[in-house]
Amino acid sequence: MADSPEEIWASNVDAVLIASSTNTHADLLSGAIQAGKAIYCEKPVDLDINRVKAVVQQAQQTNQPILVGFSRRFDSNHLGIREALRNGEIGKWEMMHITARDPKPPALSYIKISGGQYRDQTIHFFDMLRWLAGEDPIEVYAAGEALVDPAIGEAGDVDTSMLILKFVSGALCHINCSRRADYGYDERVELFGSKGMAVSRRKPRREVTLYKGNAVVSDGLHPGWFERMEPTFYQALDALIRTIEGEKVEYPTLMDGLKAQMIAEAAVESLRTNQPVKITYWSPE
Amino acid sequence: MADSPEEIWASNVDAVLIASSTNTHADLLSGAIQAGKAIYCEKPVDLDINRVKAVVQQAQQTNQPILVGFSRRFDSNHLGIREALRNGEIGKWEMMHITARDPKPPALSYIKISGGQYRDQTIHFFDMLRWLAGEDPIEVYAAGEALVDPAIGEAGDVDTSMLILKFVSGALCHINCSRRADYGYDERVELFGSKGMAVSRRKPRREVTLYKGNAVVSDGLHPGWFERMEPTFYQALDALIRTIEGEKVEYPTLMDGLKAQMIAEAAVESLRTNQPVKITYWSPE
Amino acid sequence: MADSPEEIWASNVDAVLIASSTNTHADLLSGAIQAGKAIYCEKPVDLDINRVKAVVQQAQQTNQPILVGFSRRFDSNHLGIREALRNGEIGKWEMMHITARDPKPPALSYIKISGGQYRDQTIHFFDMLRWLAGEDPIEVYAAGEALVDPAIGEAGDVDTSMLILKFVSGALCHINCSRRADYGYDERVELFGSKGMAVSRRKPRREVTLYKGNAVVSDGLHPGWFERMEPTFYQALDALIRTIEGEKVEYPTLMDGLKAQMIAEAAVESLRTNQPVKITYWSPE
Amino acid sequence: MADSPEEIWASNVDAVLIASSTNTHADLLSGAIQAGKAIYCEKPVDLDINRVKAVVQQAQQTNQPILVGFSRRFDSNHLGIREALRNGEIGKWEMMHITARDPKPPALSYIKISGGQYRDQTIHFFDMLRWLAGEDPIEVYAAGEALVDPAIGEAGDVDTSMLILKFVSGALCHINCSRRADYGYDERVELFGSKGMAVSRRKPRREVTLYKGNAVVSDGLHPGWFERMEPTFYQALDALIRTIEGEKVEYPTLMDGLKAQMIAEAAVESLRTNQPVKITYWSPE
Repeated sequence: MADSPEEIWASNVDAVLIASSTNTHADLLSGAIQAGKAIYCEKPVDLDINRVKAVVQQAQQTNQPILVGFSRRFDSNHLGIREALRNGEIGKWEMMHITARDPKPPALSYIKISGGQYRDQTIHFFDMLRWLAGEDPIEVYAAGEALVDPAIGEAGDVDTSMLILKFVSGALCHINCSRRADYGYDERVELFGSKGMAVSRRKPRREVTLYKGNAVVSDGLHPGWFERMEPTFYQALDALIRTIEGEKVEYPTLMDGLKAQMIAEAAVESLRTNQPVKITYWSPE
Repeated sequence: MADSPEEIWASNVDAVLIASSTNTHADLLSGAIQAGKAIYCEKPVDLDINRVKAVVQQAQQTNQPILVGFSRRFDSNHLGIREALRNGEIGKWEMMHITARDPKPPALSYIKISGGQYRDQTIHFFDMLRWLAGEDPIEVYAAGEALVDPAIGEAGDVDTSMLILKFVSGALCHINCSRRADYGYDERVELFGSKGMAVSRRKPRREVTLYKGNAVVSDGLHPGWFERMEPTFYQALDALIRTIEGEKVEYPTLMDGLKAQMIAEAAVESLRTNQPVKITYWSPE
Repeated sequence: MADSPEEIWASNVDAVLIASSTNTHADLLSGAIQAGKAIYCEKPVDLDINRVKAVVQQAQQTNQPILVGFSRRFDSNHLGIREALRNGEIGKWEMMHITARDPKPPALSYIKISGGQYRDQTIHFFDMLRWLAGEDPIEVYAAGEALVDPAIGEAGDVDTSMLILKFVSGALCHINCSRRADYGYDERVELFGSKGMAVSRRKPRREVTLYKGNAVVSDGLHPGWFERMEPTFYQALDALIRTIEGEKVEYPTLMDGLKAQMIAEAAVESLRTNQPVKITYWSPE
Repeated sequence: MADSPEEIWASNVDAVLIASSTNTHADLLSGAIQAGKAIYCEKPVDLDINRVKAVVQQAQQTNQPILVGFSRRFDSNHLGIREALRNGEIGKWEMMHITARDPKPPALSYIKISGGQYRDQTIHFFDMLRWLAGEDPIEVYAAGEALVDPAIGEAGDVDTSMLILKFVSGALCHINCSRRADYGYDERVELFGSKGMAVSRRKPRREVTLYKGNAVVSDGLHPGWFERMEPTFYQALDALIRTIEGEKVEYPTLMDGLKAQMIAEAAVESLRTNQPVKITYWSPE
């Protein structure tokens, strides 16, 4: 056990896992990068996009693996539809639909420092859409309201949103996000293309069904994102470890973290102005 | 409108539909056959198998179409799994499972004259298994109880049964029958073979689902066999009419009616003796 | 059989069904209204919204039933989710998602005179969202592309669209429309609310499933909108007839037709300008 | 690492896991029981039922936990339907249906020493039906054939079976077993009762669906029983450990192992004679 990050940088551990509060990520990343450690860093890198750019710039000089915690990329259902697209099963993709609904909102105290729904919740899906599509969106239009809890609105945030993102190819992506689903953690993706459609379906807790009266009642969804996504954390850690061991493995990088945040920034602007906003990307020198 | 069957036999109608009480079927069939009418006759032909044989024998001299009301042969789901078998999709069939459950039993007064569960309810599925398999079972073992209503037991009948039927090929068929399903009319078939399995799934009333709390609640089954099977009656009538018009159409014949009843007789004997019983078939001269 | 509309107006028929080409609807409606006939008129009333207003204005003086052909209102699955909302099952609605994809586009010659995707295809769903929500949208943002066929784009139309509509309550509605789905006619609706979610699921042709290799293959969707929606036409006609007979029945009216078109006009403008557009409604004097 | 069982008995380990070949189980159990170890023993205890009785008799003097490897009792889907019955959701159970199909048969060399399909494969489901029903069957009728591989028949065994088991209450249980399912490891249970039906559905590998052409193709079943049942092994080990730690936990005991085998013996006899056979149970003194 170390008393400070510096002890860890000086030690001979191969990798570090950064899962502390968001405002500590950038400094810890910087230290770990300088120390040459492999890194697993929970999202976001930082709420201030300039700090993120700084870390990305710093990481340019190094080549240790840095994995940002977009673990949904390791979900077997989502991997399944990505394969279907890559294998040509659905042809050229034309429309993507992502549903992302948490069972309940975070505490108001957290919401106030979270950066808002798009930087905190939807950011996972800005990453997911890039990973699925294999291309970066160029424009976003966001509509959002505080329907779940007016206090969220008073805090300057929204809890119910719909977004449309455009791509160079003309393809369109829709994301809907809610901070409250009465029926559990709801995540579902449809990828529609010229030759078919692939769906990452809602995953039930169990495959148990009761036939009673005039209804057919099945087990519902998971009570939270962790229960639904638990295996992805093991898969993500495994990806980092296998990379350290020399295997060529796909994983979400710092640049992926930055791009997701740049989309989030444009979405925040779109919500503010009720206008579609072009997404500008930045690359390190 | 006619005052008597004889008026109908003498008239110039092309076809008659016999849907009167069972004990009138054999005589009406006999008259209609003699009159050269095409016939749709509700099952069963008669509860006395010798009377059925007599009608079959009589029909040997004629060639007008006589369709016995096993309308499930026209159900699109059941047709679908039959196609899968005929197309070689599932290879050689090895096991068949038929579930047949009514929402509630008929009136006790009807049960007492019905001939019992196997001659009245299961007989549809003795026909269905022959139609699906394309071969006749050679032996049957039946287990049955009066679990729904002791009065049914006191009347000498059963309301909950399981049967196993054997075939020359070695293939096995299981039927389960109940006179009461709390959740609606339940009919489902699985055809398992050397290359796969085809399922005629439970058909819901609608495709409506509610996600609420920790459950996923979908519309249930139909409230009765008629609601579930309504289109099959139109298809069956249509098959008769198209046959009259000269088209070559498959439909359940008097001989199919007789064979289903011979299986029923063996099943009744098996239940009585708690022994497997060989099924003997009879052909007209 | 009549040789002209005038003969029909002068006859003693109670009702007329207008299913001729769109450019004849307004005149025929006008004549039928004047003649006091009950009317079933296929959508749209007219591509020129001013003509529609004129007919609506004219109908103000009368009270015969005039049903506009938005027959999806009679689909049992859609009715099911509307009931769930009206019964309070899902609480206050917050997000609605409508998927509407035709198997293939209409002929280019038709597309050129159709008024475009929003006036021709999406208009059914502008009506559906009003009928489901029980309120009128106040703003719409549309994104659309010609991804299926460049010729459609050259003709000034789109074939792949996503729209977001806003409501006074803050609720949001998303519609996605495509003129081509490789896998059949695809129509699906999700109604998400404060207490749950109701889904009008994709309806399969049959309930037949094949287990083979490492896949589970079920029958797919219907080959076209008519096969999927056939029963709704009978239900719609039945609604008109029952209304004529004095029963109080819900059905889509001329005003519903007009409102759907006003939403379509705003959507067309939004697509043209890539701006959200406020929807203004008009009422007759 | 120990060189012999005796070293293990003499050591201070709290528990042993016996997963060696079947013919070693009885001796190892005896030694472990004598040594006072807690035990996890893979099924079966022994193919010779008298040896099983001897071990059960010996274990009567002791009270350490002895868990027999019927790990399906820990499957969350099966637990779900057992809860539904225990909670009164489906009323009094009347019919149970168990489907159990392996992707492919074991090696012929194994089959020859396995004791046959009922002692080797179906035995898991003899245990499962007791665990679900909460009562012991009193009679069994078995029908079986070698349809998958004639060599299995030549070895005196069967690979395709249907069984009906009767209970004092009148309830009926059907099991179907196959040594070969083209489409993966297939395990499914239906519990039908006076107030409804609970189903432990087929569990797919993933929740991924492809809509293409006229079909809807979903991921299929698991490639083997281990992949399907993996979590149950952890749950079963966990049950033993928690018992050792003093918690009151349900698990399958030696007596459960014996009873399953007694049912298997009666099933073997029934197959041999083509007669229903009463199941006699034995209790240790």
